[in-house]
Amino acid sequence: MCELLGMSANVPTDLCFSFTGLLQRGGGTGPHRDGWGVVLYEGQGIRAFRDWAPSVSSEIAQLVSRLPMKSCIAISHIREANVGAVNLENTHPFVRELFGRNWTFAHNGQLADTHELALGDFTPVGSTDSEWAFCWLLARIRERFACGDSLNCDEPAYWQQLHQWCNALSPRGVANFLFSDGRYLFAYCATKLSWITRRAPFGEARLSDSDLAVDFGEHTTANDIVTVIATNPLTTNETWHAMSAGEFIVFDRGEIAYRAGDTQRNNSQTQ
Amino acid sequence: MCELLGMSANVPTDLCFSFTGLLQRGGGTGPHRDGWGVVLYEGQGIRAFRDWAPSVSSEIAQLVSRLPMKSCIAISHIREANVGAVNLENTHPFVRELFGRNWTFAHNGQLADTHELALGDFTPVGSTDSEWAFCWLLARIRERFACGDSLNCDEPAYWQQLHQWCNALSPRGVANFLFSDGRYLFAYCATKLSWITRRAPFGEARLSDSDLAVDFGEHTTANDIVTVIATNPLTTNETWHAMSAGEFIVFDRGEIAYRAGDTQRNNSQTQ
Repeated sequence: MCELLGMSANVPTDLCFSFTGLLQRGGGTGPHRDGWGVVLYEGQGIRAFRDWAPSVSSEIAQLVSRLPMKSCIAISHIREANVGAVNLENTHPFVRELFGRNWTFAHNGQLADTHELALGDFTPVGSTDSEWAFCWLLARIRERFACGDSLNCDEPAYWQQLHQWCNALSPRGVANFLFSDGRYLFAYCATKLSWITRRAPFGEARLSDSDLAVDFGEHTTANDIVTVIATNPLTTNETWHAMSAGEFIVFDRGEIAYRAGDTQRNNSQTQ
Repeated sequence: MCELLGMSANVPTDLCFSFTGLLQRGGGTGPHRDGWGVVLYEGQGIRAFRDWAPSVSSEIAQLVSRLPMKSCIAISHIREANVGAVNLENTHPFVRELFGRNWTFAHNGQLADTHELALGDFTPVGSTDSEWAFCWLLARIRERFACGDSLNCDEPAYWQQLHQWCNALSPRGVANFLFSDGRYLFAYCATKLSWITRRAPFGEARLSDSDLAVDFGEHTTANDIVTVIATNPLTTNETWHAMSAGEFIVFDRGEIAYRAGDTQRNNSQTQ
């Protein structure tokens, strides 16, 4: 399988501490040796780093872990391949432009028969189930908001629709998703995702996968709000919140903007 | 303005030597301080590195210049901004997926009133004339090959069409383009582009912008063919070929697959 990491913050924040913990699991403390990737947003622009090499031994990953590149939204992934060869085109996160925004998508799990899903103009470059599911999701969004309808990304009705599409993919297997349009961080949990929101008063955090601790009080202001979400909690001395199966959360600048359980799960169908 | 760098090779080759020369021009030996970017293909997968910081002082650029990442196609750009703020979304090369391929585009020059150009489903994320022209070009390609027509990217008729679209953009200003679909490297010259093909017997090359020389004979085999193309020649002791105004060249694994002058330039119109 794989592991996911995401961040949503109200001030540009570097991912160094959390990423340092995650990259250990890519061949060090964890078996996810088949590549890694991270997308860091700066406004609508992105930096994307990826490698098919294990993150624990990747020189590019080392750079990402120590260079304080500041983002309000970040998504990262370390891969243990099941579908698709180990190469760059199969390395998450995947990125596509839609409506003038960079959309980013990463997946933990496996989905069956995704090639049955009808795509629009988005065509997978690689051969993973994950990228196919992403293309399907984007095609649904484009279709839903085509014909000049104004896209209001700031409304619960829209987020509810995204949730339904995730629910529609979920019965095909294991569907833990982190994705973003550069404005919001969307998290869908099928089996395993945990999050933590750090805000004043900040304290010390200790990584579970590396002998590293940070006192966030030394690096933050009283107004900072930073949420980190991961497949497995990254620290040992903090309380993380486990998402439930079928739950969907929209993070906006570190805070929860929308949250819904799996009530609609049985009413949805894969298109 | 800006400077361009491209590479087409028949064996995976690193860009370290040429990129080391180019990055000096981003705030060192040249004035192109407003960011830089590079896309390195591995098959259809890509690594993309970009920064709004000057390349000469960018830690990410330093990594790219010393890490031997091997590609058969690479496109790089250092920016001196004219249209669009200095930020990541305005940093070349731009990347979009079309027909399941990663397309990459970089531009040296300036084009007037590109917002008049009708786009299809490709929407610019940033505010540059360059990204708009790229979106327009992709929209034309999709339109031309839509409706189930098979796309034969290996035929002169297709390359001639690409040339005509470049010609159509050219009257709007200065249009030096490097772009790729991951299979071919396309070069369109309006004012300034030079290329060199290195093959056996390989010799020594000396950078013009850095006190660095390399003996390619020590790093190559007898069958290697590597073409490098740049706004200005990167070495002092080799003969580079200057492209003429309106010329279009398709490079395939280091060799010229198609080459045409500006004969059709006056017959084309911007759509």
